[in-house]
Formats: sequence, structure tokens, C-alpha cells
Amino acid sequence: MIDKVFLRKKLSEFLEEDIGYKDITTDNLDLDKNVEGFFIAKGSGIVAGTVFVKEVFNILGDADFQSFKKDGDYISKGEIVGVVYGNCKSVLKGERVSLNILQRLSGIATLTNLYVKQLEGTKTKLLDTRKTTPGFRAFEKYAVKVGGGENHRFGLYDMVMIKDNHIALVGSIKEVVKQVKSKVSPMVKIEVEVGDFQQLYEALETEVDIIMLDNMSVEQVKEAVEIVGGSKLVEVSGNITLENIRDYALCNPDFISTGSIVHSAKWLDISLKLNTGGV
Amino acid sequence: MIDKVFLRKKLSEFLEEDIGYKDITTDNLDLDKNVEGFFIAKGSGIVAGTVFVKEVFNILGDADFQSFKKDGDYISKGEIVGVVYGNCKSVLKGERVSLNILQRLSGIATLTNLYVKQLEGTKTKLLDTRKTTPGFRAFEKYAVKVGGGENHRFGLYDMVMIKDNHIALVGSIKEVVKQVKSKVSPMVKIEVEVGDFQQLYEALETEVDIIMLDNMSVEQVKEAVEIVGGSKLVEVSGNITLENIRDYALCNPDFISTGSIVHSAKWLDISLKLNTGGV
Amino acid sequence: MIDKVFLRKKLSEFLEEDIGYKDITTDNLDLDKNVEGFFIAKGSGIVAGTVFVKEVFNILGDADFQSFKKDGDYISKGEIVGVVYGNCKSVLKGERVSLNILQRLSGIATLTNLYVKQLEGTKTKLLDTRKTTPGFRAFEKYAVKVGGGENHRFGLYDMVMIKDNHIALVGSIKEVVKQVKSKVSPMVKIEVEVGDFQQLYEALETEVDIIMLDNMSVEQVKEAVEIVGGSKLVEVSGNITLENIRDYALCNPDFISTGSIVHSAKWLDISLKLNTGGV
Amino acid sequence: MIDKVFLRKKLSEFLEEDIGYKDITTDNLDLDKNVEGFFIAKGSGIVAGTVFVKEVFNILGDADFQSFKKDGDYISKGEIVGVVYGNCKSVLKGERVSLNILQRLSGIATLTNLYVKQLEGTKTKLLDTRKTTPGFRAFEKYAVKVGGGENHRFGLYDMVMIKDNHIALVGSIKEVVKQVKSKVSPMVKIEVEVGDFQQLYEALETEVDIIMLDNMSVEQVKEAVEIVGGSKLVEVSGNITLENIRDYALCNPDFISTGSIVHSAKWLDISLKLNTGGV
Amino acid sequence: MIDKVFLRKKLSEFLEEDIGYKDITTDNLDLDKNVEGFFIAKGSGIVAGTVFVKEVFNILGDADFQSFKKDGDYISKGEIVGVVYGNCKSVLKGERVSLNILQRLSGIATLTNLYVKQLEGTKTKLLDTRKTTPGFRAFEKYAVKVGGGENHRFGLYDMVMIKDNHIALVGSIKEVVKQVKSKVSPMVKIEVEVGDFQQLYEALETEVDIIMLDNMSVEQVKEAVEIVGGSKLVEVSGNITLENIRDYALCNPDFISTGSIVHSAKWLDISLKLNTGGV
Amino acid sequence: MIDKVFLRKKLSEFLEEDIGYKDITTDNLDLDKNVEGFFIAKGSGIVAGTVFVKEVFNILGDADFQSFKKDGDYISKGEIVGVVYGNCKSVLKGERVSLNILQRLSGIATLTNLYVKQLEGTKTKLLDTRKTTPGFRAFEKYAVKVGGGENHRFGLYDMVMIKDNHIALVGSIKEVVKQVKSKVSPMVKIEVEVGDFQQLYEALETEVDIIMLDNMSVEQVKEAVEIVGGSKLVEVSGNITLENIRDYALCNPDFISTGSIVHSAKWLDISLKLNTGGV
Repeated sequence: MIDKVFLRKKLSEFLEEDIGYKDITTDNLDLDKNVEGFFIAKGSGIVAGTVFVKEVFNILGDADFQSFKKDGDYISKGEIVGVVYGNCKSVLKGERVSLNILQRLSGIATLTNLYVKQLEGTKTKLLDTRKTTPGFRAFEKYAVKVGGGENHRFGLYDMVMIKDNHIALVGSIKEVVKQVKSKVSPMVKIEVEVGDFQQLYEALETEVDIIMLDNMSVEQVKEAVEIVGGSKLVEVSGNITLENIRDYALCNPDFISTGSIVHSAKWLDISLKLNTGGV
Repeated sequence: MIDKVFLRKKLSEFLEEDIGYKDITTDNLDLDKNVEGFFIAKGSGIVAGTVFVKEVFNILGDADFQSFKKDGDYISKGEIVGVVYGNCKSVLKGERVSLNILQRLSGIATLTNLYVKQLEGTKTKLLDTRKTTPGFRAFEKYAVKVGGGENHRFGLYDMVMIKDNHIALVGSIKEVVKQVKSKVSPMVKIEVEVGDFQQLYEALETEVDIIMLDNMSVEQVKEAVEIVGGSKLVEVSGNITLENIRDYALCNPDFISTGSIVHSAKWLDISLKLNTGGV
Repeated sequence: MIDKVFLRKKLSEFLEEDIGYKDITTDNLDLDKNVEGFFIAKGSGIVAGTVFVKEVFNILGDADFQSFKKDGDYISKGEIVGVVYGNCKSVLKGERVSLNILQRLSGIATLTNLYVKQLEGTKTKLLDTRKTTPGFRAFEKYAVKVGGGENHRFGLYDMVMIKDNHIALVGSIKEVVKQVKSKVSPMVKIEVEVGDFQQLYEALETEVDIIMLDNMSVEQVKEAVEIVGGSKLVEVSGNITLENIRDYALCNPDFISTGSIVHSAKWLDISLKLNTGGV
Repeated sequence: MIDKVFLRKKLSEFLEEDIGYKDITTDNLDLDKNVEGFFIAKGSGIVAGTVFVKEVFNILGDADFQSFKKDGDYISKGEIVGVVYGNCKSVLKGERVSLNILQRLSGIATLTNLYVKQLEGTKTKLLDTRKTTPGFRAFEKYAVKVGGGENHRFGLYDMVMIKDNHIALVGSIKEVVKQVKSKVSPMVKIEVEVGDFQQLYEALETEVDIIMLDNMSVEQVKEAVEIVGGSKLVEVSGNITLENIRDYALCNPDFISTGSIVHSAKWLDISLKLNTGGV
Repeated sequence: MIDKVFLRKKLSEFLEEDIGYKDITTDNLDLDKNVEGFFIAKGSGIVAGTVFVKEVFNILGDADFQSFKKDGDYISKGEIVGVVYGNCKSVLKGERVSLNILQRLSGIATLTNLYVKQLEGTKTKLLDTRKTTPGFRAFEKYAVKVGGGENHRFGLYDMVMIKDNHIALVGSIKEVVKQVKSKVSPMVKIEVEVGDFQQLYEALETEVDIIMLDNMSVEQVKEAVEIVGGSKLVEVSGNITLENIRDYALCNPDFISTGSIVHSAKWLDISLKLNTGGV
Repeated sequence: MIDKVFLRKKLSEFLEEDIGYKDITTDNLDLDKNVEGFFIAKGSGIVAGTVFVKEVFNILGDADFQSFKKDGDYISKGEIVGVVYGNCKSVLKGERVSLNILQRLSGIATLTNLYVKQLEGTKTKLLDTRKTTPGFRAFEKYAVKVGGGENHRFGLYDMVMIKDNHIALVGSIKEVVKQVKSKVSPMVKIEVEVGDFQQLYEALETEVDIIMLDNMSVEQVKEAVEIVGGSKLVEVSGNITLENIRDYALCNPDFISTGSIVHSAKWLDISLKLNTGGV
């Protein structure tokens, strides 16, 4: 769950983006009754975001959301995600933001879960990346976890990731590690990306915590994992698909990361059905 | 193009989300040289977002982006989108936000364009919806336009859209239109969603500008467009796919809208390749 | 009514502008009792803003405002607008912001209403403009509606208005309309300003929704309305006064717009009278 | 002049209020030439706000404003306030915010100046109040100074003002002064409002810096000023008009304050005339 | 007490600085019980900040703080400041911000109080300065008052302080006072800093309210106070220590100011002890 | 160095806190000349914050700061830190914020350095804590690094720290580690606080990265470090002083952490001396 202080700030911004100064349809109607509305799945998958929908209606006020599914539950087409009850204006004004969050996050959780299932029986964990929608990262990373994945770093501030460009600019992996080590907090982990075996051997001589094998074939990964031999954590990255992820996992890396669980996820179809007869 | 005052505020937030208080990899290296970096397409499609990448590097400072492609241009795998030149730290710190914007928006523009091509030779225009990523709507709607689509309303504040729930709550289309008309600015357009022919006939007797045919079959849309006979604008919505959009368009509605051009778009693969030898 | 999320953000800014870090008079007194305070009209007119005063005291807490008049009601000198009851410190700290909103908005509503009364029996509606106090537009436009007027566009983002400068820069009305039409959302209305009959005829050949007759005499407006003949909506603008507005209205335009209902409105005198004996 | 850090924040908010995500008229035109635009007075009065207009165009960029009049100069109908030169899109997008600031502030400066002229030859200075448009106070108080008036306190935080309600709630002027004195910073001035001579005598026995005579007749003020005899500063407030202000001033109070210079000021008519032929 | 609107904004920022998007320790535990936690003094001194701790837990929700000590009370090592009761996650997430406020402010109040005690029996009051931690000034100045000191100006906006540099740049004290007097609000006090007796005599001929004797010896201060003879308020500043402050005070200045009560204060040691057995 | 986007936001807030809407002393003087100002050390120590002073004057504009010392350099009383040159109003308005940053941060760097020197010849590194001034953490942690210390976690979001309360609430170290491990990103390090040897042995059986020995004597630390035997990193915390830190370091822990380098640091005395004769 995202912290409430941070969450309320972000959700207020999302509501203001959609509502602006006024909902000129709903707020111009003579309506003052309570309704109940059911969030119904039009597709099947893993639900994510119900905890945020609850807070959306808390911010709008005069309406309350109760979830029938917990984030992470599987939902089948036709099942009810949850129910909102309250003043019909609040319900109508919170509908779109709630659905946009719920559909986007459930889509990510669902796709993530497909990848995670391919890893069953292996020691490999699925990681996300920083390839997220600007401004929405904390939510998308939350959905990855709901789907069974793990979060890689949140930004440039909470972990060191030495990439090909850093190495090329500084000259060698050893020199990059040396420079970073001398300046960075010892409380953060350091990962280095290697693109071939020469770099792998160089990385193994440094004090990095994790080695990322970038864009290697299954065969290369297999060999690399054996070379590392458990002396460092190993992450596999690059061109991972639902089809090939298991082959990579069977090479026994600690992690496989892919941005596609976020950037290629389609929304899970969910809609709000109002019981306009009231209750 | 998004207005600069609004744009700088949003891009600053996006950069802060990614960088936080510091890039603990790049900012801990002894680097002080200029580099040039090429944004290279790893897939093919319509480019969108170059105008924002330019501003990302303006905000970071010490680096400048020049685009080889204009937003809306087709790009083939392997072609160069543009080049950034400047201090290597600024380039590295702006990389991810730039790519996230460029890949997400180009993905939307590309998918939108596929739909738009299905409408060739018809009078029908493609519209987006409010199904967008929270906090990122102005950018996603920009990409729809780049791809050849048109923008539906931006939020609840700039157009009246009378939906099934409004009608059910108030009692009838006529009564909703009457109430809204008496309060809303005459400068905004009014659209009403109808789900069957009885509602269609009722809507035709009101002063709404646009009628949305919701979830109708191709045959129903054909008949409905004939009934309207040009007296109002007609929008078709619901269950639109790349496969069926042309069939709907051949019924001659003014607009077909679909959220899928945004929520089902996959990112166009683009990466940044640095010339670390400098220039 | 302005949406609550937006409203709370603005009212909090207004309160912070006035109170800063502390009310160094009130907060330095040993006071801890409840009082009731009566907002009393010192002049007569149309009340506007009571809905915002209620929220001002909600934000401050420990005090509640009950309105005896609804926004839009006529109030006579000496009558009570409403009563606030609660902790005396909250009441005193919310006094000035509440009064500034109430007096400014009631002044606008009252002046607007004078103009609106001149239109009685005609088909013409009164419109406001974008000539508003920076940062306070949503409130001032709300007051116009309370006074019986209608809102023109809220900003440069929600409607197209082609003015003399656009025409002069691009070359012709037709060319401006063509360029805008090809790019703008079909969901927004388009208005063009014409200064003479030649421009009027040119505008009539385009697909604009509304034609604004700028700075024309009553006679010219009469002729122009007849030329348009109901094929487009007609707005009259420029040099409108309380004295001449009815003459213009009798020419049967759809709208007459004037910034003076906002920028020339004097505050309605209202004061807060505390029952300091408590209750 | 308002400080630049504070100013840029406010002006950016004002621009965003007007422009939103985009100017859908101007930004949808194929325009890319420079223009010059003349701000021309359509009425006569004291100019105020040119320093802010300059910053508006600095923020928008690609345009520069040069003022022909300094804030405080008298301008006659038909004279030019200043000229903006730059990209026509920036000029058009900054037009309304610039004019709203310039017209509103020049209106206040002009009305203020009328009052100030009535005080010529007396020792009395004109003061404003906290009756200002919410969110726009610093600008309106700036205009008062431009017109020759002086600023009273900016908010509840920078000066102690003991009003009738404080006195009634605490019990006596002496007790209020005692309580405040014991807690407030000795660096701020203390003013007390008195409504009759009994309160005046009580106030004179305290250590307040200024005594405000509230709603007294000219005769009462005359007597009160004599009673005070220069031992404290004296401010006259309540029901001040252009007609009676000189009579009050001839009683020799130090200050006369009135909110009407702000809340009853009508805008000075100023418009922007573009030289669309370019230069 | 700091005003609530301002306070909630600042405390929310402080909480977000510490918690970010999530407390990845506490929020990842299966905890859902209420606890009570005791804020216990590990040192002795004057308590300050309990009013803010209460609001910290109000913002976090699900937890409530009750103070056993009022701000300004003396607390001995081992005594309890107050108790928080509520959901253990809220308690743990609010712990550090609460303690940082409480310890920092109590440290300032305690040190301030040591200085204030040195002034007992004299007419001299202790003042703080603008030497405060950026972003935290209102809180630190609050603590000074809790400790028995008084607040000097809050910023450059609420009082005139003419310093050596102003005098040197303009040419003379008289000229600075003349220029400022002609422009500044008459509602703010004016203070001038003098470094020697020549400047003192010059200052005495102006209308300033307060004269600051800067960096003078005890003997010089004694003489200066006699010269002023009560005609102006006198502030002593520069190199004030706990050891010498009484000597200065015995010269009878109105104020002695020192930044050291803020910038040299060490935190009062306070810790939170949870009763994890629940209640 | 703190990232520029984040930095400009914070420094703008700091400047607005101090300046408000206007510097009513400086901005009311007829000054328009350039001056140079020297930041001069009045005490000796390690300089920190010059990089921020440069940006303060960039934001204010019309003035530029050049540092003669790099952050981390030792400065002796009387030496010059750097020089600002530019418009005298910008210089005067940026003076206090610049000094507050420079003095506070140099004080922290100087005290940190005293502790670091005690560690010379040992393998132990000095760590800071989350005991920082609310809103100013990134700056204070920057100063710790300048002084030769290392940064512990920045907040609750970037590292897991299992403390006594977590253990007491959940029941055992093993259970806490198990719960956290199952949920937290594998990319963050995990530290556990142990208070005795039983907890130490329990912690050694878990997969935590770092063990913090809380409030142990030198003898206990010596024994604990031997028990751990290099299998985990060891941090010593609690009651660390300048006097005892070396004794602890000689026990060979990896880290010793103390909040006192921040919360007990006194400001390094630095002042700005203007060359008001201009240049």
C-alpha cells in the first residue's frame, strides 16, 4: 500500500485533472439521492487498485467504497470487484478516476502474473523496471507486486545501477565501481550491467552486489550463471517474452527483469454499474 | 503542443519522480565531458513526444535535443529519432523520462494511426476518451492527435456528456437536457449517450449537439445514422476494434470513439545510444 | 458550485494569504469560548458565495456556517445572510476571507442581475468574459451565474475564439477556420469575431458555431442579426452599458457579453456582527 | 515591486488559469512570425502593473515588453502604455493575463490617486485595508502605493489590530492589550479600534501605537484628535468617501483608511493593438 | 501556536520527506493492532512542540496524541512528555518526524530559557534572529517563545531593518531612513543598526523606532543606553553569550538578541517507548 | 550535489520563507549598483554548502557567486569562502538564506569531520541517521558526506531497518525478517537492530545484510563483532561521543552511526562583508 500522505496528494491531483473546477454535467443536475454502484469485471484477471478507489471516494466525500476482492485476488468476467455507496454526485465524479486506476493496475497485475507463473518451480524472481508512465510510477510498481512480481529500484536515488554508458564514459567497470563506492551510501546496493563475458569476469572482481546480464542468449545466461557460481546475485534483462522467460529461468538466475509487464499491459476491462433506483 | 507553463510544471514533476534528490550512480562519478546521444527506433511506427524531450533537456540544462523527425512522422526500425548533445550527466539523468514519454506517446500515436487508416475514404473521424493514465492525460491526448485521431473532451469541465446513469437518475433524456441547458454555459457542446432506438428518438427531440450510440451493432448503427439523417452529429462508441471499425465507419457516423488507442497501446521501442567517445 | 477538491485547494491558499503562520492578534488572546456571528447585509442585492463561506469554516475547523439565504436570493439592507457558530478564534480568523469572497461575489451577482433584468422579455442571454481577477476566475464566473448571467469560455483551453488579431495574422477568416478546424477537437465550439459586414459575410460561409459582432452600433447589430437569419448563433460585444443593453437585445442576438459585470462591480457591503456574549 | 521568486510563482498560476494545457485557438494556427503589440489606454488615469507585464512575457518566453510609462505615471486616453515584441503566439497567449493585471491595478491606482489628491496640504496619509480580492492581495496593495496611498498590514501575521470583537470577547481594551503585549513580538506595532470616547480614553492609557477611530463623524474625529494630542498615531476609518475624506483630513489624523480604493475601483480600459503586418 | 492551515501543509511535507511513497519496513509487516507509545525525556529541559506532534498523528490518522506536559513546562529526565495511542503502523510512521520536531524545539526552548533566566530582574527581553534552519523558521521561532524569548522579525517582509550595508550603499543613516520612510508602510517598525557613537547620534535624529547597538562592549552599551535616554528602544546584538548576557542586560537595553539560542541549541533527548503488548 | 530540479524547488521555498512578497528595507531604497560581497569565515572548520549558495544567487538573478573553497576544504578564521558579485539588491536579499545554509552545513561538516578523524586507521566508517531538521534532510545529509561521513538511509522508503518495536510487535526477529523478505524489493538492504546477544544470534540465522548493535558497551561490541566474524556487516549505534567513538572503532565494526553530528552541530560562523564602494 502507498503511504496515505503521499497518496492523498497524488489522488487529489488526479481528481483535479479530470474534474477541473466542476463536473458541468453532473453538478448541473438536481440530484441529491444516494446510489450504490457496482464495479463489475468485464474480463478476467488479477485485481489491483481497490485500496486506491477507497481513498478516491474518501477524498470526494459523501461516498464509501467497500471491496469484495482484495488486491491480488483473481476475478472472473462478470464478478463484482466492489461496491460504492453514497451521494450520486460523488459517485459519478469519482467514477472515471477510479476506473482508470483499477483497469490500468489490474491490467499490469494480470500480465505480471502470467510472467510469474512461468517462473513456478524455479528460484527466479520477476522484477520490473523504471519504464513506467511518468507521474504514475508508485502505482504501477504497486501493481507489479500485486501480480506477484518484485520491484527493482524506484528511481535514480535509491540504488546504484552501473550501465553500459557509465562504463564507456569512465573507462572500465572497476573504475566506475571504485568511484561510486568511494562516494555512495554503503546502505544501497550496487548493480552492474555486463554485455559479454569479459565484462562479467571484470565485474566479478569488484564489490558489486548484483550483476545484470544484458541481452544475452539463453545459452550465454546459462554459462554466465555458472561462472558467477552464487558469488553474486544475477539478474537477466533484455528481450524477455512470455515465451522465452521460462528458458531463461531454468538457467537459475536470481532475477529476470522486464519492462513489458508495465508498458505492454492492456487494461483489464471493468465498469461501474449504478443501481439508480437507489437503495 | 502543450503550453509551456503547464508543460514545465509537469515535466519537472516527472524528473523529480525519477531522480529524487540525486542520481546516486551518475552524480557520484567524476564525469565532466560532453557527449552526443542518439535516440534510435527499435521498432517502426509514428513518432510522438519529441517536443517534450526537447523541454526535458532544457529543464535539466547543459544539454540540447534536436529532433530529426517531427511528431507524426513515420519512423522505421533503426532510424534515428533525434540527437541530444551536452553534458553527459544531464544526458544520463534525462534519459529515462525522455524515453518513457517518447515510447509511450509513440506507441499511442502508432496504434491510433492504425485505426485512422481503417477510416480512409469515409467521413468518420476517430475520437479518444477519458480512459487515460491518471496525471498523464494531456500528453496521451496529444499523442492521439499526432496519430491522426481527434480529442474528445479533456475532462468533466469542458463539455457536457449525458450518460446512462444521468438519465436513469433524473428520469428521462428530456429532463436531463432541460436541467443542464438551464444551468450550463451555452458555449459548451452537449452530447447524450443512447442505448436503443427509443432513447434515440427521445434525444432527437432535444437540443443536444451530438448523439452517442452506445454499444450498438453495425446494423443498428446503420439504421440509427439514417434516422438522425444529419440533424445531429453522431458518435459511435463501445466494443470498437481494429477489425470492426471500418464496418462501423461505412455506416457514416461523424465519429467513432475508443479508449483502446490509449489503454491498449504498447510502447514503441526506442533506446538511447551514446557516443561515449565524445565529439 | 465549484468542485470540492479544487475548492479546498483555492480556499486554503486564500486563508494562508491572510493568516500567514499565525493571527498575531487573536491567537495571542486567552480565548476559548464559542460565539455566534451574523453576516449582515449593509446594502441590498443578490447574495453569492455562501457555499464558499461554509467551506472556509470547514477548513478552519471548530466552526460551522449556516446560510439563511441561498446564493441567488435577494437580500435587503439589514437582513442576515447567515450565521457562523463555533470557537471564537476560528470565527475571527475566517472573517476577512469569508467577507472578501461574499462581498466581491455578491457585488458581481448584483450588477449582473441589473443587466439581466434589462433583457427580460427578449431571447438574449447575458455572457461574461475572461476579464476577471487573476487567480479568482472560477469564483467570479460562479457569481455571474448566480446573478442570472451565463458563462462564456473559462480559458483559452475550452473553446475556440477567433479574434481580429488571429484573422489579421493568418490572412482571412476562412483560412483561420480551416486551420483550426483541421487541428482542434470537434467537441469544442468555434466562435469568430467580426468587425464589419464584409467579415460577417465571410464568416457565414464557414462552419463556425457563433459569430461575435464586435463594437457595432445598435443599427448595425439589427442588420447583422437579420443577415445571419438564425443560421448561426450571434453574440454582441463591445461598449455594452446598462443604458444601451436593452436596445441591443431588442435586435434579437442570442448573446450579449460584457466584462463590466465583473470588472466594474462594486462590493456589496456585508459585515460580521459577533454575539460576543456567547450563547 | 513584488519579489521575483514570489512573483514568478503567482504569475505562473495566473497564466495556467487562463491557458490551461493549451490555447486551442492560437496554438492550432500555422503562425511563426514576430509581431509588435501596443498596449493603448482607452481611458485616462494612473498606470500600474507594467512591471508585472514584463515578467508575464519573460515567463512565456520569446517575447519582451518595454514600457513607455512607469508605474505611477499619468496616462491620457489614446496614449501608449508600452510595447510587446516577439513571437505572435507568446504575445497572444499573454495578452489577457497582462491586460487583466494592468487594467485592474491601474484602476486601483487611479481611484487611490483621486483620494490622495483630496489630502493635499494636510498631514494625513491614505491607507488601504485587507478588503482585497482573495489570492491577489500583494498586487492590489502594490497598486495602492503606485496611486500614492500607503499600505496597512498585509495580513493577520504582521501587525496587531485589536477590533471591537476582540474587546468584547476579552472584556476591556486594557485586558486585550495586556494579553497581546505579553505574547506578541515587540517588533510589531499595535493598533486598537475605538468606537467612542470612553474607549478612546481607555486606549490612551495603554501602550498601543495607533488608535483607530471607527465610524465617527467629522466632529467626533476633530475632538478625538485633539484629545490624543499627538501622544499616539490616529487612524480614521469607516464610511470614507471621496466627498468627505477632506473634511476628515482637516481634522489632522495621521491616517485615513478605506477599502473602497480597492473594492470600488473600476478597471482602467486598456487594450492590446497588434501590428500584424509584423516589423 | 502556528495556524492550522499553514501547519498542515508543512507537516505533510515533513512526513512525505521521511516516508516517501511507503515505509518499506512497517508497511510490509502483518500488523494491525493498537499500541500505546510513551514519549519519554532522556534529558531535562523545557518541552516544546507537543502541539505539533498532536497534528502529526491527526494527519497520519488512526492515532491520537495526548500530552502530559504543556509546551513551556519543565521536564526532568525520565518523565513522560505524552502518550500516543492508536494503530501501530501510524505510530511507527509518525515516530521520527514527531521526535525530530520535539527534540529540536525542546532544545531551542531549553537553551533560550537559560538565557532568559540570566535576564531575571532586568527590564531586558531576549530576541531571536533570522538565523534559522531554512524551511523551519516558524517552528524554531515558536520554540523561542516557548522558552521565554521574544520573536524579532519573521522575514524581510514584516519589519524594516537598516543594516551597515544599507547605510554604506546609500551614504548615510539619514538618507536611508528618508528613502525607506517615503515608501514603506507606516504600519511597520523601523530599526537601524549602529556600530559606533557617531552613527548612534545620527540615528537619534531620525524617526526610527529601535536602535540596534552592534558588536559593542558592555561599557559602550552602558554609555549608549544613557545617550538614548529612553527616546528610542534599544537592542543589543553581537557576540552575546550565556556568560556575558547579564552584564549587557544590567546596562538596561530594551532587548538583547542572539542567534545562538537557535543555531547553537542541542536537541533535548526524547525517545518513544512502545508498550508493544498493546492495551 | 543535490539534483538541480529538486534543488531549485527547495531553494525557492527557502527564499520565499525569508523574503515573502518583498524585502521592505532593500527594495524601498534607490539602489541600482553592483557590489561584491565576501563570505568570510569567523571561525575555522570544514566548508559545506557553497554549491547551494551559487544556486541561490542564480535563482535571484543579477548576481553570481564564485567559491574560493570547495565543499570539504578546511577554512581558517579570516579566510574567504567565496565572493558574490552583482546587483546589490540581489546580493542583500540572498544574504541570509545563503548564510543560514552555509553556516548550518559547515557546522555539520566540521563536527562530522571531528568524529571521522577519530576513526583514522580503523576500518570503521561513520554514518548519519534520520535525526535531521524536518524539511532540510537532503542538505544535512549532504553536509555529513562533505565532512567525511557516510549516509545511512534517507527515509523509510529506501532501506529496511528492523527496530526493537518491530520485533516486539511481531514476536521475533526471524518472523519480522520472513514477513519483510516476502514483500520488500530484493534491491534494498535489510538491517536489524539487536539489543543483546540472544538477539544477535537470532539475527545471524537470518538473511539480513547488516546488524546494528544498539546501546552496547565497548566490551559487548568487541565480543559481538567477533561473533559475527565478518558474516554480516556490523553497525554500532547509541550513545556515541567524540570521546568514546575510537574505543568502539577499535572493535572493528563496519559502521558507527550517530545523530549527534547533525543535531549537536553548532553553526560555523560565517559573515558577508560587502565592498560597498562597488568595483
